[in-house]
Parts: sequence; C-alpha cells; structure tokens
Amino acid sequence: MNTVDIQDQLETLTISPINVKLKRLPHLADYLPALQTRTNPLQHNTFYHHSHQDGFFISHSDVILRQIVFDFSGNFPSSTPHLAYHNAGPRKEILFDPKQVRAAIVTCGGLCPGLNTVIRELVVGLWELYGVREIFGIKAGYRGFYSGEPMRLDPKLVHNWHKRGGTVLETSRGGFDLQKIVDAIEKRGYNQVYIIGGDGTLRGAVKIFNEIHRRKLNVAVTGIPKTVDNDMGMIDRSFGFQTAVEMAQQAISAAHVEAESAPNSIGLVKLMGRNSGHITLDATLSSCDVDCCLIPENDFYLKGKGGLFEFIGSRLKENGHAVIVVAEGAGQDIIPRPDSQTQKTDDSGNPVFLDVGSWLNTELKKWRDRDHKGELFTIMYIDPTYMIRAVTANATNNLYCTLLAHAAIHGIMAGYTGFVTGPINGNYAYIPMDEVANAKSPVGTSDHKWAWVRSITAQPDFHRTEPNPKH
Amino acid sequence: MNTVDIQDQLETLTISPINVKLKRLPHLADYLPALQTRTNPLQHNTFYHHSHQDGFFISHSDVILRQIVFDFSGNFPSSTPHLAYHNAGPRKEILFDPKQVRAAIVTCGGLCPGLNTVIRELVVGLWELYGVREIFGIKAGYRGFYSGEPMRLDPKLVHNWHKRGGTVLETSRGGFDLQKIVDAIEKRGYNQVYIIGGDGTLRGAVKIFNEIHRRKLNVAVTGIPKTVDNDMGMIDRSFGFQTAVEMAQQAISAAHVEAESAPNSIGLVKLMGRNSGHITLDATLSSCDVDCCLIPENDFYLKGKGGLFEFIGSRLKENGHAVIVVAEGAGQDIIPRPDSQTQKTDDSGNPVFLDVGSWLNTELKKWRDRDHKGELFTIMYIDPTYMIRAVTANATNNLYCTLLAHAAIHGIMAGYTGFVTGPINGNYAYIPMDEVANAKSPVGTSDHKWAWVRSITAQPDFHRTEPNPKH
Amino acid sequence: MNTVDIQDQLETLTISPINVKLKRLPHLADYLPALQTRTNPLQHNTFYHHSHQDGFFISHSDVILRQIVFDFSGNFPSSTPHLAYHNAGPRKEILFDPKQVRAAIVTCGGLCPGLNTVIRELVVGLWELYGVREIFGIKAGYRGFYSGEPMRLDPKLVHNWHKRGGTVLETSRGGFDLQKIVDAIEKRGYNQVYIIGGDGTLRGAVKIFNEIHRRKLNVAVTGIPKTVDNDMGMIDRSFGFQTAVEMAQQAISAAHVEAESAPNSIGLVKLMGRNSGHITLDATLSSCDVDCCLIPENDFYLKGKGGLFEFIGSRLKENGHAVIVVAEGAGQDIIPRPDSQTQKTDDSGNPVFLDVGSWLNTELKKWRDRDHKGELFTIMYIDPTYMIRAVTANATNNLYCTLLAHAAIHGIMAGYTGFVTGPINGNYAYIPMDEVANAKSPVGTSDHKWAWVRSITAQPDFHRTEPNPKH
Amino acid sequence: MNTVDIQDQLETLTISPINVKLKRLPHLADYLPALQTRTNPLQHNTFYHHSHQDGFFISHSDVILRQIVFDFSGNFPSSTPHLAYHNAGPRKEILFDPKQVRAAIVTCGGLCPGLNTVIRELVVGLWELYGVREIFGIKAGYRGFYSGEPMRLDPKLVHNWHKRGGTVLETSRGGFDLQKIVDAIEKRGYNQVYIIGGDGTLRGAVKIFNEIHRRKLNVAVTGIPKTVDNDMGMIDRSFGFQTAVEMAQQAISAAHVEAESAPNSIGLVKLMGRNSGHITLDATLSSCDVDCCLIPENDFYLKGKGGLFEFIGSRLKENGHAVIVVAEGAGQDIIPRPDSQTQKTDDSGNPVFLDVGSWLNTELKKWRDRDHKGELFTIMYIDPTYMIRAVTANATNNLYCTLLAHAAIHGIMAGYTGFVTGPINGNYAYIPMDEVANAKSPVGTSDHKWAWVRSITAQPDFHRTEPNPKH
Repeated sequence: MNTVDIQDQLETLTISPINVKLKRLPHLADYLPALQTRTNPLQHNTFYHHSHQDGFFISHSDVILRQIVFDFSGNFPSSTPHLAYHNAGPRKEILFDPKQVRAAIVTCGGLCPGLNTVIRELVVGLWELYGVREIFGIKAGYRGFYSGEPMRLDPKLVHNWHKRGGTVLETSRGGFDLQKIVDAIEKRGYNQVYIIGGDGTLRGAVKIFNEIHRRKLNVAVTGIPKTVDNDMGMIDRSFGFQTAVEMAQQAISAAHVEAESAPNSIGLVKLMGRNSGHITLDATLSSCDVDCCLIPENDFYLKGKGGLFEFIGSRLKENGHAVIVVAEGAGQDIIPRPDSQTQKTDDSGNPVFLDVGSWLNTELKKWRDRDHKGELFTIMYIDPTYMIRAVTANATNNLYCTLLAHAAIHGIMAGYTGFVTGPINGNYAYIPMDEVANAKSPVGTSDHKWAWVRSITAQPDFHRTEPNPKH
Repeated sequence: MNTVDIQDQLETLTISPINVKLKRLPHLADYLPALQTRTNPLQHNTFYHHSHQDGFFISHSDVILRQIVFDFSGNFPSSTPHLAYHNAGPRKEILFDPKQVRAAIVTCGGLCPGLNTVIRELVVGLWELYGVREIFGIKAGYRGFYSGEPMRLDPKLVHNWHKRGGTVLETSRGGFDLQKIVDAIEKRGYNQVYIIGGDGTLRGAVKIFNEIHRRKLNVAVTGIPKTVDNDMGMIDRSFGFQTAVEMAQQAISAAHVEAESAPNSIGLVKLMGRNSGHITLDATLSSCDVDCCLIPENDFYLKGKGGLFEFIGSRLKENGHAVIVVAEGAGQDIIPRPDSQTQKTDDSGNPVFLDVGSWLNTELKKWRDRDHKGELFTIMYIDPTYMIRAVTANATNNLYCTLLAHAAIHGIMAGYTGFVTGPINGNYAYIPMDEVANAKSPVGTSDHKWAWVRSITAQPDFHRTEPNPKH
Repeated sequence: MNTVDIQDQLETLTISPINVKLKRLPHLADYLPALQTRTNPLQHNTFYHHSHQDGFFISHSDVILRQIVFDFSGNFPSSTPHLAYHNAGPRKEILFDPKQVRAAIVTCGGLCPGLNTVIRELVVGLWELYGVREIFGIKAGYRGFYSGEPMRLDPKLVHNWHKRGGTVLETSRGGFDLQKIVDAIEKRGYNQVYIIGGDGTLRGAVKIFNEIHRRKLNVAVTGIPKTVDNDMGMIDRSFGFQTAVEMAQQAISAAHVEAESAPNSIGLVKLMGRNSGHITLDATLSSCDVDCCLIPENDFYLKGKGGLFEFIGSRLKENGHAVIVVAEGAGQDIIPRPDSQTQKTDDSGNPVFLDVGSWLNTELKKWRDRDHKGELFTIMYIDPTYMIRAVTANATNNLYCTLLAHAAIHGIMAGYTGFVTGPINGNYAYIPMDEVANAKSPVGTSDHKWAWVRSITAQPDFHRTEPNPKH
Repeated sequence: MNTVDIQDQLETLTISPINVKLKRLPHLADYLPALQTRTNPLQHNTFYHHSHQDGFFISHSDVILRQIVFDFSGNFPSSTPHLAYHNAGPRKEILFDPKQVRAAIVTCGGLCPGLNTVIRELVVGLWELYGVREIFGIKAGYRGFYSGEPMRLDPKLVHNWHKRGGTVLETSRGGFDLQKIVDAIEKRGYNQVYIIGGDGTLRGAVKIFNEIHRRKLNVAVTGIPKTVDNDMGMIDRSFGFQTAVEMAQQAISAAHVEAESAPNSIGLVKLMGRNSGHITLDATLSSCDVDCCLIPENDFYLKGKGGLFEFIGSRLKENGHAVIVVAEGAGQDIIPRPDSQTQKTDDSGNPVFLDVGSWLNTELKKWRDRDHKGELFTIMYIDPTYMIRAVTANATNNLYCTLLAHAAIHGIMAGYTGFVTGPINGNYAYIPMDEVANAKSPVGTSDHKWAWVRSITAQPDFHRTEPNPKH
C-alpha cells in the first residue's frame, strides 16, 4: 500500500437509519390560521441579497442535528430518536407587515457583557432589514411593561450602545405579574416581544407566551438567552461568557501577583457561577496560575485528610504561595446557613446564595490563626464580580450578539413564537422556549477539561475515604 | 390544542438512511504492524481520570459528523455519503512507551497569537499526562531540523510562555528540504513530530509524513493548523483569529476617531487576510464603525458608476467622513503589477501580494487631488499588522490552544500519524493531514454575515453594469 | 557630633539678593481702562469656596519662579535677573459679567489625546463655576470662525466627551485668515476666545490678540498649548504626551516580539516627534526593549565606521535581533529630498517632513540585500502614529486637562488676555502667549536621561571621526 | 503703548534677599573622615558622558528651592528662611570603589506598581554605570536581613522584571529588629543598603542609619519612598500613584455602569488611601462619573440634615442612580469600633483601619430597608484594592522609577547616607531621611482640586449646623 492509497481510502460506514425527531416550533398560525404570509422584503433588498443566489433563504425543512458525535461500534443505538431543531435565518415568506410591527425589547436579571449590543442589533436589524419603524425599549425589566413609559428606539439613538457596558434599558429582578404584563402588551399594541434574560426570565417568558396563546393574540414572543455564567442548556454558549472569562483572568493575575509577592500567601478569587463553574474552569485553564479550582459541580471540604486545608498547606510548604479560585455556587452545602436564610429567595425567585468567598476567606484566616500562629501568612481575597459584569463585550461576543439578534428577528418576522434563538453545534437554531428555560448546563466533571484542571493543579478530588469530621 | 400539547408534540422525521463515510486516518501500525500497544498511563492517573467513569476514553469508533444541517424536504439526497471524522481524545491503549518518546516541536510561517500557548501546552501535556521527559524545540522553522541545535523543553521553562507574544522557538518561512529534514529526524531520534503552521507548512508536513512512511520509520507526525487569517478549511476556526479581530478593532476605532475629527476625512485600515476576508469581515461587524469593507472574495473597482470613489464621495458628502477596511488580499487583480513581480513567490512558496493598502492610499490621494482640489480632504492610512500579530492570545484562544495541543498529544500517543487536530462543529477531531492542507475557507459572500455587512454599509456590490473603464 | 545633631543642623546659605523679573501679562484694562471689575461669583459658591478660607483666591502678586535650581558656589550670578510668572487660579475680582460672556472654543492642528477633555472642562467650568451660558464650539479649526456655523455647547452635551478620542469640534490645519477671523469674532459677539493648538496655532493666536488689541475690542484671548510631541518650551509638559508614550510602548513591544521571533530580525518603529524626540526617548526608557533610539536632536548616519548599519550588524550577531525606534523628525538632513519638496510646507506653514520611517525601512532592506544576501534577515516596520493619537487621555492627562482648562477660565474671567496657561515647576502659571509660541523644548542630549539611553543601548554617538562617506 | 511694548516690557521686582537654608545631608565622611574619594568612572564612560560637556556632573553646591510660589506684595516675609535641598545626580568624585561595593536591596510593606522597576533599575544602574558586580536582594522585607539567604541579582536576571506586577523580592510588614538587621549587614558585608518602603519603613531606616553611624560602619543607607497612596510629604509624587489612579477608574466605571443599569441604584467603590484621599480625589476628577467623594481629610456623617443619606436620596430622586467613592481612611471616627480593636496595630505598627467600605455598604442597606422599603433599590460595592496594587507600572511611572533608582545610586556612590531621593518641584533631590519619614501629605481641602470636586458633585460639606444626632 502506498501513501497515496492511505490518504484516498475511505472506510465506509453506514449508520442507518438515523431517526430524527424535530421538536415542533410554535407558530402564530397554530392558533391564528387566518394570518396571511407575504414576501420577505429582503427579496428586494439588493444590498442584502443577490437575486441570483440559491439557498439564501432558510426553509422550514432545514434542520440542525443536536447530536453529532456517534459511536458506530456494534451496539449502535439505531432506534433511539435523534433530536433536530429548525435552522435559523430569513424565510422567503413572512407573517408580519413591517409597517404594522410594534416591537418591544426588555432586559431582565443581572448584567452581562453584550446586553447593549443585542438591543442595538435588534433595533438596527428590524429597521434596516425589514423597515420596522416602531421599536420600544421597556425600562427596568418585566415591571417596566406595566409601570412607566417605554423608550422609543431608532438606529441613530442606539448607534454607539455596543460601546457601553450594562444595559441602557436598565434591568431588574422580579416584577413578574403575568396579567399586568400581557394586559400592557395588548394595551400598548406590541406584536413582537423580545425578552432578554436568564432561565428564570425565560420561564416567565414561557408563561407570557402561553397567556398570549390563550388569549389568541397576534403577538409573537421570543427569548434571547442571557447568562454570563454560561449555564444554560441546549445552546453552545451564551453571550458575554467569553468576555467574563477574559476579565476573570485579570483578577486571577492580581491574586497570583499578590500571592507571589509575600511569603506564605494565599490569593483567593471568587468568580461568578451560581449553578455552574464554567467561568471558573475556563479562567483557570486560560490563566495557568491557579492552584485550586472549586466549582459547584464538585463538592469539597476543608478539614482532615484530603481536605482543602491539607492541600493548601502542602502547596504553601512547596511554593510559598497558592491561588484558589472559587465559583460563587460552590460549597453551598457546607457553609453554615443562618436559620433566617433557610428558605430565602431573591426577587427573581432564585435561592439566595451564601457568600462562599467571604466564608472561605474567614475560614482560611481561622485556620491560619489556629494552625500557623506566629508565621507570616497572608490571605488576599478578591471579588471582581461587578468589574467583570460591567465591561463591554469583546469582539467575539459582539459578533455573536449581532447574529443572535438577527436570527431572532428573522424567526419572529416569519411568525414563529415561543422560541429561543441560540447556537447548536455552531449553527443558529430556533428552539422551543420551554426547553431552553428548563435546561441546565453544568461543567462535566468527567470530561477532559475538568480532568486537565485536576492534572495541572493536582488538587484533591474531595472524595472522602474516612468519616466526615465536623467542618 | 393547548399550549402544553404544542410544546410536547414532536414532529417525527426519518432521515433514512444517512450513509456515513469515515475518512481513514493513517496509523503507525499501517506499516509497522509489529508495534505493540500498551495501557494508557492516564488509566492510573487519579487526578486525570476517575476509575469509575465510563466513556472517559475515546474509541476508534467515535466519529463526528461533518454535515449537521439537513434539508428534510422531498428531494433529500439520501444516497450522498456524509463524511465523518474520528473524535479526538485519549485512547485506552497507546502505542508509544512514554519513556522512549523523543518529541520535536516546530513553528513555521508568520506570527499568530497563541503560538507560545500551543508550545507550552504540548510540553506540559506530554510531561504531566504521559510522563514524557525528552521534548525538544526546533528553532526557526523547518530549517531548524538540520541547522543548529534544538532547545530542550520542560514545564518549568515554558511555564509563563502563554503570557508572551510571538514564538519563543522562533519561526521562519521556507527552509523546507525534505531529505535533510527526515534525515535529521532519524539522526536525532525524534519519534513524535509536532508541526505548527499554515497550509503551506502542512503541505510540507504531508511530504514529511509520506517520506517517513516510505522509510518505514517509527515516527508519528501531526500538524497543528495555524492561520491568523482563519482561512483554513475543514476546521471551525483557527487559534489567534479571534484575538486578531479584537485587536483589529483598535485600528478601526483609531481610523474612525481620526476620520470623525477632521472635515472630509477618510480612515483607511489594511487588515490581514491574504486569501480570505474573515478578519476584515468580523472586525467590521463587531465595530459598527466601517463604511466600506473590501475582501478578496469580492472584486471591486475604483472609478466610474458603482465604483469605490463614487460611493466614498457620496458618503463624505453625507457624513463628512468615511472608514474603509481592506483585507490584504483584496484587489490583487486591479493593482498594476510591476513586471518584476509577475511570478514572485515568498520563501514559503506563496505568491507575493501587492500592497493593497499603500496602493489604495495613493489612489485615494490622486482622486482627491484630481476631483477635490482645494477642498479640505484628509486620508489617514493605518497598517496595524505587526501590532495585531504580536499580542498574546486572549482567554478564548488560550483555552482553544490548550485543548488543541492535548488532542494532538492523545492522537499521536495512540499511534495516529499524518493527521491534523481541529474542531469540527465544536468537537475536536482528527483529520487526515492532506485534507486540511488543501482545504480553503473563503468568506461566503452569499451568506448572512456578508449580507449584513452590505446592509449596514450600503456599499456597492461592484458588479459592473457598464463597460469597464480603465482604472 | 551625634546623629541628632547631624539631622538638626542646617547649613545656612544666603543667596542674596535674587532679583526677580516678572513678565508683564497683557490685560484688557491695558487698553480698555473703563472696564469695571466685579466680585467673583465663586465668593458666594458654598461648594467651591469656604468663606472662612484665607488664601483661596490668587492675587496678581502671586508669582512662580521659573528657575529653581541654583548653584550657590562662589561665582553665584546674583545680578542676573530671574524670571517669574503669574500664578494661575481664581481672582477675587473679575472683569466679565458672566451673563454677558459669549465664549468660543476652537481646536487646531493634529489630534492629541485629551482634546475632548479640555473642551469638556472649559464648557463645564464656565457653566458651573461662573454661570456662563453662551458657549460655542468653532468647527474644524481657524477656518471655522468664518465658514460654517458654530456648535452650541452645554454640560449635558459634553458630559462624556472625555471618554472619546479625537476632537468632537473637528480640527484642521491652516485656514488662518486674520481679518476674517477677527471680523467673525466681532460679528458673532464672542468676547472670550479659547484657542487650543500647537506652536503654529499659538503664533496665529498672537496675531489675533494683537489685532483685537489694535481694534480695542473687549475680547480676551487665551491659548491652550497642545502638542503630543511635548516640544513646547516654557511649560513642564503638554497634555496627551504621557498617553502617547504609554501607547508607543505597545508598538515597541510588538516590534520586540516580532524581532525576537525570527532569526536576524529587525523591528523598526517610527514615533511622533517632528522637532523633538521626547516620545521616542521616554518610550525607550520605559520599555527597556530598544537597541537604538534615533531623535532629531542627535544626528546619525548609516554607513561606515560608527554608523547605524555597523552597530545593528553587531547587535544582530550578538542577540539575533534588534529594535530601532526613530522619531519622525530624525535624519531629515540625510534623507535625499526630491527637488519638489525642497521648500514645501503644510497647511499650518510647517515644513513638510520626509518620512524617515519608510526611508530607513528601505535603506535597511537595501543593506540586507547587499551585505547579507542569502541570510535569513527580516525587517518589520511599524508606524503606529494614528493609533497613538486617536486614543483617549489616560487618568494623569485627563486631570491635567481639567486643571489647565480651569486655570484658563479663571485667567480670562479676570481680564487677562494674550496669555497661555501651563505648568511651570509643577504649578499652573499664566505666561505671555508670544513667549510660549516661540519657545522650543528639545531633548537635552547632555542630560542624564539621554545619557542613560546611550548607556543601556550602547548605541554609537554618531560623531564621525573620519571622512564622511557618501550615504 | 503698542502691543509689542506690552509683550516686551518687564515689571522688575526685587525679592531681596531670599535667605536660603540648606538642610545638611549626612555623609559617610562625617564620621569616617579617612575615606578617600576617587574619580567617578562615568567620566570615562563614552556612552554616558561626552567629555566636552560642561555641567554634566552635579556638585554639592547645586540646590533646589523648596518654595517656588511667592507673594511679592507689601508684606513679603523676606526674613523667613527658605529651605533648599541638594540636587540629585552623578558627582565628579565618588567615595566607593565599585569593585568593593556589596549592595543590598529590600522591599517592605504593601505592594505598589513599580516596585520591580525600581529593583531592576537599581541592579542595571549599579552594574552598567558603576561596574558594581555584587548586588543582593533581601527577601520578604526587613526580616529577610537576618533570616534566609539573599538572592544574587544581575542585569540578565532582572531584565524583564518591569513587566511583572508585585515584587520579585517579596515583601512583608514588620520584622524590624534593629540589632539583628545591623548585625546582618555587618556580617554579610553589605556597604550600600537600598530600602524601598513607606513612612513606617523609612522610620525604621532612620534607626538603621543611626545605629550604623553609632557603630561607625562604612555603610551607606538610602530610602526609596514608596506609597501608592501618594501621602508622603516633601516629594512631589510617589511612584505607582498614577498607575493606581488609572486602574481606580476601571472600578469607578464599573460602579457607574452598574448604577446606571438599574433603577435607584448606588455604586460604592472603596479606594486605597489610609491617611490621604489622593487616589480617590484624582480618580474622581479624571472619571467625571462620581456623585460623592469621601476622603480622610474631610469628615462626614450619615443621618440628618446635610448628611450623606439626605444627599444620596436627593441624587437618586434626580438621576435614578449615584456613585460614591470612599478612601479607606475616611470615616474612621464614626465607624463603631469593637473594643478589641481600640488599640490594635498591624505588623508595621500602623493602627488597624476599620473597613469603611463594608461598613458603608451595610449602613446604606440598613437605610434602604428602613426608609425605602419596597422600592427597587440596589447597592453594588466594589473593593478593587488588590486588582489595583498588583498591576505593572504605566509608562510614566516606569520612567519615574528609573530616574529615582539612578538618583539613589549616584547619591550613595558619592558617599551620602541617611537620605531619601525624590522629586521636588519636578527635580530629583536628596533629602535627609528623617524629614521624609515624618512628613505627611494630606489632600488640601482648601485648594482648587477639592473645590472643583465639590463644585461638580455638589456634595455637602458635612459641616453640621445643628446638634449631632446619633448615627
């Protein structure tokens, strides 16, 4: 066999048949069958679309496979159905008359780099691509629908918003009053509602969609998934996440410099991540300056054999310094919870998290005062949360926000509703909103990224092999 | 039908059968059948791998589908074979005894943010994961194999390399002498060769692989694809690209500030991209400050109706300023080429590109002096190439480099050779080297990203509708 | 003698007498003696000024010594007069009724970080401190006085201008038509004119002041010195300069990375500095990555013994790479000047500079092709000029701009005219405009900063000791 | 009188005589009169010094006036002595034989941007300028003299230290044991001791100098003043300060974005500054985003008329958001102090500061819960201390560190001892160490910078006009 043969030869495998099941995407015509479609104005937009192009418009039958890695060995599960989702993009026919569109945009929950870019691109996209002229910003989250006046938006106004952190529309938690919101939507005459928020917000959006459906209103609702923590399931990645990892490295770098510059010194950094350690994990991998990485997906304990103190103690003995990075959701089960907080939830209905950073800072100091009395021993604690959240999106995230916003516009103009736009395996898809609202995306502690973190840190697995001492 | 039904109902589609063809991946055992496999030491690495985990190791039968978007409408081309590639990751059995490994790492071609991270992670990964202790850096590209001494590498030495731009191993173009290189590999006793470079470099690597195969040497060769331009086919994205887009925005922002701060002022920025306009396109979309975006995939012309001058003239009249961004490979067919350069190629064998930035700068000035004599009219030209290439990789790219390096190590330890590692649809795959070396990835001028650029810039399509005047 | 004695003992020196000469500062009352003073409204501003404070207001008799380093040894030149200048700051009595003020602000010449901060602070300061309500921005430099409409300015409009690079008022070179400008000032009713610009601009401002004086107009004129090159005499430092040095380091760092990453590689950076090498010098000292620093104050030559090529050649032999930083005004006498440019001046009347960066780039390549044929040998040329000029001012410069703007306002409200504000020995002073317009501030090649550059670079002094070969 | 006359005429003032008193600078020859001087090797260094230059070397009779602003009106206080200090720089004759020099460098106290630059430049300067070859870094502060081994330093080792934050030598507080330190200096044979630290450290250095003097050791001691807070008297500015202000703006910007992005939202930032509010003041002025600026030099209170709550309440009503910046030393008198802390001091002997940031955060939340129950009302607290301290110095500060280090070397080589180097009115001077160790530099609350802060914030003066309620 010569080398050319090697290169040319194909092993032929038949993975047959793949049964694909397509999740049904809600559409206004489901309950308003009288609605008429019309030609997408993009067909006549010589800038956007060359008439001679085939395949420019996306059809309802274009789907994206969710699973793309297969094991073709003997026990190939051919009968299992494989899910597929609608490919996002402009449709040849649309359901809305752009002249009749009144679009409402709202941001809910915490800050995330890129929020202003999404708003900007929704406005510019609706205006430039479809000729929509009535676009409104709802102020300060869900409550803004029924309290206060909306803000009229146009391309000139939003032109430089992508260069500002935060959200010009303001945001807040809570304020979700279903009837008041849907009443306001009816009263104000909005027929396209763009809701930018996290899983809690999207669960609210599902209720709004259901109520609109119940009332049989000609109003399409879409969710733009926002979570700086990157903990939303179904989609590849959320906007702002990579920017946050970038900024998190500044905090880790500062902790590292501080720790290296004093004898027996610990730098402790708390990073965002209530349910998942993605920011913590990625920042640890990117920075290469971390000795111990604590995430919600992996329990840990402080004292005794195999505990954090033992590990950090040995690391100090070895190197004279150590850097610990902890996600805010880590260790929630071992932090003593004051009774008053047992059931507490915040305005968005999420459980209140105990501050693992401050707690760990205190516990490390207690340990020092108890076991290392008289030694030089410093602990520096950094909580960069607000400094991370408030920056503008980096270029990668800005582009992501642009494509996300446009995909949402194309979908809603085509009459889809109750859906979320997001990338699946690198392609933008339309996904039923309730699926995304309820999907989680934890760090896979059995995958290779986490394995590599443990390899380079050599941190314990915190699997107790002996009776649990009181911590 | 109630809303719950809508959500729960699945349309069932059977896309049957998908015939998958797997590209055969070269393996040392193809021509050295006597080689024995051994247990991967990761199986006993308690940090890397929990013994109770299923599915941690990747098998030869795990494949990644290349195509993931399907049209399930009537004319579904079921008989077309769909390509699949081997999934990257650690194998249960490996072919190399880590104690016998002598690894060589080389960087070729131009600088790209992340080069040092790849080198660092190859060294740390080989050392920490597999216990390899003999790792060598080849200096200054291909010629370094046969001229000069290699540089011994270990984790302590490379520890902070990811925080430095450029490549500590140095790089160069050309110097490819097949026999000398393979002789040196034999003489030095390298049995793992990691070649980091662009398509030209990879075509060289294919020749090295073929020659090693011909000589039946127990040497595995892998390519790590490097192109800041992101113009390599088969893989989703190349490392350093996103960092380059980030930095490109600084140059665009400067051009925009300069143009806004003077009457009738043009900011002109030349960005990297010899064969493709990816950096130019993405930077244009992210920055929102560009009036005209010129890429190699889209011809343009200067004079006459529908030409660049007409467009820029109208933009100046309207706004008083304009920003043009041009990829270095754009306009090569309309720049007058001095005879001496007709056939010129550089040391890597690539055709020498004419400097479109300087040419356009000159042409704009001639146009000004001819058609706008006596007017205030300034042209500011920025070529940020070296300032972009020389920065360190951002967090996203650093992480990418880490995963890429590890995937390469796992593959080569398992005995694969003549392959390249890269992400396909978000998953790291092993791909026959010759496929990647010859694949291109131009900007899709019929896709939605380019459509959006044209929509927001309203720039002409440069499709001449009248006889071509002399430019 | 014990140590306490050492500390307490004062050597008593009498430097007697220092004859101080105060440069007379022009004042509106010089030629308009009928003008009435009024109480400064700051006296009643409880935020600005506590009534119980002594010494808050600056009086006409508060002066700043220009010379502060004295040699008290035998030949002390006691009879030489030592110059002093008026201390800047609010006066108890002012000459303008804030309600009658119509202020005009103009920016001229090239961009400089901090321009927008100066404009912003002039507007906010006039408005908040003195209650001025009629403030106008003149567009695009001197010509804006007589062509086009001014831009009405208020604190709300300018609020975020300090976060933008460039000048929102736009700038241009030339356009100086004395009669048209003074006619326009009269016609528009401006009585305070703030002119932000370099030495050429200030020489124009002196003419405007003289003409206003001649016409006996109740119009005060002040200059705000602007030169990113820091080459203006009399004042300690100009705004934007330190920001430029900061940014220049990015370019030097890129050149260094490029040079280190290839064998026999030269990084060449051209920095701003037409008449002086301050940016080049300070960036060289701060970065510690430069092998050769070429400035206008120090001649150099290329060929022969003691020339640049010889030095760079030896540096390449030694280290494998070299970084050269050249100020744009360096080498003007040795660059062959095309006849057409012999007498050329730009729109501001400054001589056109030959592009030393491109020339040196070409000459280095010729040298390579001649003397190092066949060797690996790369030259990377970076011209970061626009990327430096267009950034926003750093914190230090922003604060400087604020204090500068306020000092100008206080002076002009008090009736001073024909003056410039700037720091002398760290204190803001009022200086007769013509003195600043004609003062130069070259790098002192006999001082310790330049000595240190030569020590660390070990670059030649370029003092030819043999017959000058043709370069 | 024509305009030319105006310009040319000088008012002649005789400020006669200025009696200058020069603070005596300790010198080794004071108590070791037998020491011989020798020619400074710089006289023969052709790179550093052109032999034909006059005035290159600084003489003992070159002095810098401390006061440079004079009021020449009637009551000119001619008899008051005016202090002068020795000008820093290389002397023609030196006291040390470079071959005999054993230099020790130590860093004490908290981190400050630029520490590594100072160390680097001391090493490179001693080596390159004077040919010193025995240079040692003392590890981890004062205790490093008598515990552990020193670190041998040379230019190659320290080459890139200016690009790293923190201090490679490590630092610590306390550990000052006079006899042990001076014993160690004797035993190790150090004859030049460079002590980099704050006022506490310098007071220790004075004791070391006195003890060395008492023992009549041939050892010169110099202090390099380090305080990120810029609160050291006598000198114009301390290194690292401007870098800290730059970084502080990032935190203020984040607080501003957070506050703007939610209804009724307060951003609270705590900045460094135990005894002085310089960082807080300058960052407030540079950023223009602050509503209230609280510094140690200005008392404040929370409740009642004219208090903080009233002011912030009105600001929220007006704008919907507010940003408060507080220096860590502010409000120490109104924070309830737990008994245990009444007398507490840290390892450097400084009083322990109560955490004004956390306290204010808590008090604002109590106020919200009490007076604004049920309203949307968020408080975001940012403490960026470690992220500020750990960065590298900016270009301005790097250059400052270089000049500072060289001035210290020149002084100590000349035989001066017990002195500090620092800029006075822009010129580097030698100052007796005890003067600097005991001088303070508070923010002048009666000067124009503070006046401007109060003008733009319109914040209350917190001068109670009514009986003090319990806070």
